[in-house]
Amino acid sequence: MSTIEELKERVRCLEAELEKSKKSSVARQKISQMSSEVVDSNPYSRLMALKRMGIVDNYEKIRDYTVAVVGVGGVGSVTAEMLTRCGIGKLLLFDYDKVELANMNRLFFQPHQSGMSKVEAAEKTLREINPDVEFETHNYNITTMDNFTHFMNRISTGSLQGNSPVDLVLSCVDNFEARMAINTACNELGQTWIESGVSENAVSGHIQMIKPGETSCFACAPPLVVATGTDEKTLKREGVCAASLPTTMGIVAGLLVQNTLKYLLQFGEVTYYLGYNALQDFFPMMSLKPNPTCDDSFCKKQQNIYQERLAAKPEIKVEEVAEEVTHEENNWGIELVSETSELELKEAEGVIPDLVAGVRVAYTTPAPQPTQEADIPSGTGDATESLDDLMAKMKSL
Amino acid sequence: MSTIEELKERVRCLEAELEKSKKSSVARQKISQMSSEVVDSNPYSRLMALKRMGIVDNYEKIRDYTVAVVGVGGVGSVTAEMLTRCGIGKLLLFDYDKVELANMNRLFFQPHQSGMSKVEAAEKTLREINPDVEFETHNYNITTMDNFTHFMNRISTGSLQGNSPVDLVLSCVDNFEARMAINTACNELGQTWIESGVSENAVSGHIQMIKPGETSCFACAPPLVVATGTDEKTLKREGVCAASLPTTMGIVAGLLVQNTLKYLLQFGEVTYYLGYNALQDFFPMMSLKPNPTCDDSFCKKQQNIYQERLAAKPEIKVEEVAEEVTHEENNWGIELVSETSELELKEAEGVIPDLVAGVRVAYTTPAPQPTQEADIPSGTGDATESLDDLMAKMKSL
Repeated sequence: MSTIEELKERVRCLEAELEKSKKSSVARQKISQMSSEVVDSNPYSRLMALKRMGIVDNYEKIRDYTVAVVGVGGVGSVTAEMLTRCGIGKLLLFDYDKVELANMNRLFFQPHQSGMSKVEAAEKTLREINPDVEFETHNYNITTMDNFTHFMNRISTGSLQGNSPVDLVLSCVDNFEARMAINTACNELGQTWIESGVSENAVSGHIQMIKPGETSCFACAPPLVVATGTDEKTLKREGVCAASLPTTMGIVAGLLVQNTLKYLLQFGEVTYYLGYNALQDFFPMMSLKPNPTCDDSFCKKQQNIYQERLAAKPEIKVEEVAEEVTHEENNWGIELVSETSELELKEAEGVIPDLVAGVRVAYTTPAPQPTQEADIPSGTGDATESLDDLMAKMKSL
Repeated sequence: MSTIEELKERVRCLEAELEKSKKSSVARQKISQMSSEVVDSNPYSRLMALKRMGIVDNYEKIRDYTVAVVGVGGVGSVTAEMLTRCGIGKLLLFDYDKVELANMNRLFFQPHQSGMSKVEAAEKTLREINPDVEFETHNYNITTMDNFTHFMNRISTGSLQGNSPVDLVLSCVDNFEARMAINTACNELGQTWIESGVSENAVSGHIQMIKPGETSCFACAPPLVVATGTDEKTLKREGVCAASLPTTMGIVAGLLVQNTLKYLLQFGEVTYYLGYNALQDFFPMMSLKPNPTCDDSFCKKQQNIYQERLAAKPEIKVEEVAEEVTHEENNWGIELVSETSELELKEAEGVIPDLVAGVRVAYTTPAPQPTQEADIPSGTGDATESLDDLMAKMKSL
């Protein structure tokens, strides 16, 4: 039989425990200004150290930038988390999916979030990690007519500064229809974006930066499924799902955000196309020029604008610029990776895949060992073929 | 004044509330067998799909493996999370540090965990993500005498099967003293491990697999600070901290775990040394043979054991094996990356760093553009120098 004193003590204990359990989910306080001070309580000390190390001139500027992340799945959620931990100014998140236990083989989401919308679950976690970031979430499919219009509006006016475009759009979607929607919007708006993707066997991925008019857009050299007008939903079989790995998704997200940081904070060299082949740890790079006969009329319009802008700068020859793909208005100091010469390609050990006109490899994958199976994707045309020839070929398939 | 009944009622209420608050963080139920079924509630469907995609023969086998992660910081915590989400059998975690707000610029830990020990916080999060994984945590510094003995014991007997060695040790520590401790332990035990590291300017990193006797150990070609016997603590200045980025750390963890999966589940090619240069998206690969005059006597012993094992297989010529670094007992199908020939090196575009004997580059970094500063680390000796010459040179510095 309990005495009053014992019961009172039990109440005190329980109240304290409950208080503690509530406190454990409280995030940190907002921080009004990024500090370089090296103390355990400063979440920005290791980022501001990039200045002292001579890597970034003005790290604090990250707080002025707004990035839109389209698709908050295996790649997009980690992308958003990395940008949040880096202290980005504002994030716009777009997704219409719900968290499921089947997502738990990738980073970020947790089992207890099952059933929540991905954007809602992501925002909650990210706010706890860094309350200094501003979030705007949209729980919808960007490919429907109304949503697409709204999406275009948010991209062109959703920045932290208000009524001005976001600084960068990151595509982390898992289907071609959504990629084409982002491509259409960005071509029309002249909005720079980076596309990302992971193969359905989970062992390769890529990132590709697209500057409308300046580099190949997603419609300039479309994947077969897009070029042939196939409905990709018909390609998905009942009871069959794509494989995925937290490793490949995490690496692709890392490469995507690393190039985002280089682009926004102007350090290093931004890579226009970077592939990742997990089986061989092979990382191909290439650059893609826009297709003058692209199906997207806004892409052609942006190409004209870009050429006119170049022509208006007589001190730089257009030919030279087209060759080097760096130009005077290159505010970000971005340069394409140096390409390998034809001679070097011939002398290189690896197999050179067939490529469409205008595309050249920076490295080749080492020739396969006799004891292992070849795993080099074969190309779809030879290097002297024009894109038109290729498109005709694909359509005749 | 409260009556006994009122107090009892209050205790009941508080207990119920506490129970509820605990339940909200309850993770999913254990799953006794991995299933390939494609349903939203199956956390393993996308991993088991690797079998259908022809990538992995027997994914379920991952449940039989035990991996030790030493250092649960920026790289180690993400490494542990990836392995947990992949459904590894058992994880051993070693760290003696506490979670601080200053860690929040890297993935995994959350602000509300500040003050907890890293291994305790990590175990709690990881158990919620995947209760099927077995965890064993050690909150201590492995470099002190007693802890080192205990660490050796856990590595050699801590596997899921009991009283047998772990399948792989992953080094995710941030200092040379701890790396040397892991190296010493693994040389003595003949334990395969993978070392990882990120530079203090946060824009480069690497992974390196070490098979005692077969590949270079960490003492075979030690960094200058180790070779000269410098106390690295004297190198750290007051109020100065290393920079770090969630991107670089996440990418290095991804490459580390991807190669761990390839090694354990026998697919693709395991890379022995893979570097990552974030400024140029450059990924050098190389292979390192052991140093016959290594300072570590256990390394030399393991080299002898390895050579004796090779000699006992007369069908394979030792010379051939030494050249190709593949051998009949290669149960995992591991091969070194094909090395570039001298001729190819000469013809390559990039600058070839000076390397110690036995080390050759697989690729060179592209020659720096005139508009950017060179970022190629200079070597410490020329290619014809022996390691002894080099060590003597370093000591005289």
